[in-house]
Amino acid sequence: MTAQTIQDELVSAIRTIKDYPKEGILFRDITTLLGDARAFRRAVDALVQPWAGSKVDQIAGIEARGFILGGAVAHQLSAGFVPIRKKGKLPHETVRIAYSLEYGLDEMEMHKDAIKPGDRVILVDDLIATGGTAEAACKLLRSMGANIEAACFIVDLPDLGGRKKLEAMNVPVRTLVEFPGH
Amino acid sequence: MTAQTIQDELVSAIRTIKDYPKEGILFRDITTLLGDARAFRRAVDALVQPWAGSKVDQIAGIEARGFILGGAVAHQLSAGFVPIRKKGKLPHETVRIAYSLEYGLDEMEMHKDAIKPGDRVILVDDLIATGGTAEAACKLLRSMGANIEAACFIVDLPDLGGRKKLEAMNVPVRTLVEFPGH
Repeated sequence: MTAQTIQDELVSAIRTIKDYPKEGILFRDITTLLGDARAFRRAVDALVQPWAGSKVDQIAGIEARGFILGGAVAHQLSAGFVPIRKKGKLPHETVRIAYSLEYGLDEMEMHKDAIKPGDRVILVDDLIATGGTAEAACKLLRSMGANIEAACFIVDLPDLGGRKKLEAMNVPVRTLVEFPGH
Repeated sequence: MTAQTIQDELVSAIRTIKDYPKEGILFRDITTLLGDARAFRRAVDALVQPWAGSKVDQIAGIEARGFILGGAVAHQLSAGFVPIRKKGKLPHETVRIAYSLEYGLDEMEMHKDAIKPGDRVILVDDLIATGGTAEAACKLLRSMGANIEAACFIVDLPDLGGRKKLEAMNVPVRTLVEFPGH
């Protein structure tokens, strides 16, 4: 068996779907990576390797794919998990933020008591593209007093500028693989 | 520190919200358990303790709260993860099943290639009530040839009959805490 870098392994575990959700888009489908036990585990462990052995209070995951990865990351780091959800899905008092999508606005929310001021938090999602959702999530977390250690994603689409958007607000970004282009 | 059973610990980590989503309902909110690092970890590890060290191929999680728990369970058991999603959310070819909700019908789906015949699969969600969603998920998994080892939930609402519904289709059910009543 030849040595294979984790990047090579993860890239080959990700499925690319042409023209989804619309013509001209190459959709990076991570469900094939999630379903590959070894690749999933390596991705989770590599993503949070810089925090191994250090205290992280909460993993914040963005609905819905960020929940899968975030749950695994929380388990790996022995941290709690905070869901950031589309509006109207959480049963208790929430804080809410509006953000722009390609067409129009949407809102996301989290429970008011989910973060304590000073909590060390890592934001997790599967992929960063334009970064609009992640930026809103970081603002929401900071509004509750979170210290955001980092935002972690398996996939970066660097040409869409999301990483720069988060770094401009002093959120360190960690990703494992990049797909240039859109 | 007095000894506390895991059941006591989990019950006290779950928040009960009165009259949500409508009057007369006691909603069992597990977000407080997820946010409690120790309780979350204990719940995940206890849930899958019977399979520790044995080979499970895939953890199937039901959108959306089942994704959080399922991701952590997959990491704990070094298994893959298969998302069972509301219709229209998965990018590749799917299999689909309709199921009854309190009012009307809904549909859930999974990727056609997510399960190989003979795969040992554990279904995961946060809570079992009437069991309609879990029953449909089990049928969908079996239609792809899955061997369902068990369906695992943190919370059982035993008076609503979900456990019996799954056991009647020979799916072993594992839960950690029960709340009698509705």
